[in-house]
Amino acid sequence: MNNHFSFLGGHEGPWQVTHCETLIGPPLADVTRISVVNGPAHSLGNKATWTLQGFTSNVRYAERHEIELLRAKQEGLGRQASVCAALIPIKKNPQWWAMAQDERRAIFEAQSHHTEIGLAYLPQIARQLHHSRDLGEPFDFLTWFEFAPEHTPAFNELLAHLRRSKEWEYVEREIDIRLIKPL
Amino acid sequence: MNNHFSFLGGHEGPWQVTHCETLIGPPLADVTRISVVNGPAHSLGNKATWTLQGFTSNVRYAERHEIELLRAKQEGLGRQASVCAALIPIKKNPQWWAMAQDERRAIFEAQSHHTEIGLAYLPQIARQLHHSRDLGEPFDFLTWFEFAPEHTPAFNELLAHLRRSKEWEYVEREIDIRLIKPL
Repeated sequence: MNNHFSFLGGHEGPWQVTHCETLIGPPLADVTRISVVNGPAHSLGNKATWTLQGFTSNVRYAERHEIELLRAKQEGLGRQASVCAALIPIKKNPQWWAMAQDERRAIFEAQSHHTEIGLAYLPQIARQLHHSRDLGEPFDFLTWFEFAPEHTPAFNELLAHLRRSKEWEYVEREIDIRLIKPL
Repeated sequence: MNNHFSFLGGHEGPWQVTHCETLIGPPLADVTRISVVNGPAHSLGNKATWTLQGFTSNVRYAERHEIELLRAKQEGLGRQASVCAALIPIKKNPQWWAMAQDERRAIFEAQSHHTEIGLAYLPQIARQLHHSRDLGEPFDFLTWFEFAPEHTPAFNELLAHLRRSKEWEYVEREIDIRLIKPL
């Protein structure tokens, strides 16, 4: 299952936690390091303080013209200069999930400009979305971001835009974990 | 993870296989009975000949007006008269999954009338869709249908409609397993 990723929070691993802020809902236990492992959690040992898992998948909202714009600008994870990362687990409320596809799409893009906001910060801010809700996880999405230290203000601005959006009214839990990869 | 279901093919279980037809792609090993278990496969023992698993999830294409029509007509699984069932695992090709949301929706409904066809056979044919692709499974979807014996011709007609649709040009593996629940 190579589309599955587990995020192990604990006291070892390549990513060092520099800051952890709970924006809404219950916090996660404090950890000092995070490892990202390509595999489902049940296949791993259990030394971590917490484990969050999700899978990458096909696009759920992006239309063809948006995919083309994203592809033209985005860069992948693992760039050498990207020594800053963020793991942002979020959970949306039952009202969000009860909506039809057209209702969610309208809030996601027409009202909240989610793709458009993300596009404005490419290629500086690279990201990967992982879906968790269908695995019975405590969060619905785990988004992993990577960027160079000088783009931290841009990243904060990107988050501020999204958090002011209509879509974010449906977020009932969000934690913002910032990380650096020590040289 | 109570949205996860495992379908265990073997020689025990409440559902007796009456017919198994491979429509496209490689077959599954022959089995005489199927059990449906509410839980992920890795938590179960391994006596089955094969195990297929999937999760129920939020709607991926249905718009508000379609959801209202479906809700007004559909009935749930487990009706006493529904002693016939079908398990139809399908896999779509990479071209399907590379499409944007608007492209998939256009083929699914505008060109193939998937929801409209299903609606025409409600409430006689009850169904539950399980998503498998994101679990790294051999199939993308496992659809489970239940109906009374006298509605078997209607069910065959429903399948014939779908299999003639544009959407089915993207199906690269499909197996049609028919079952009865012995009294």
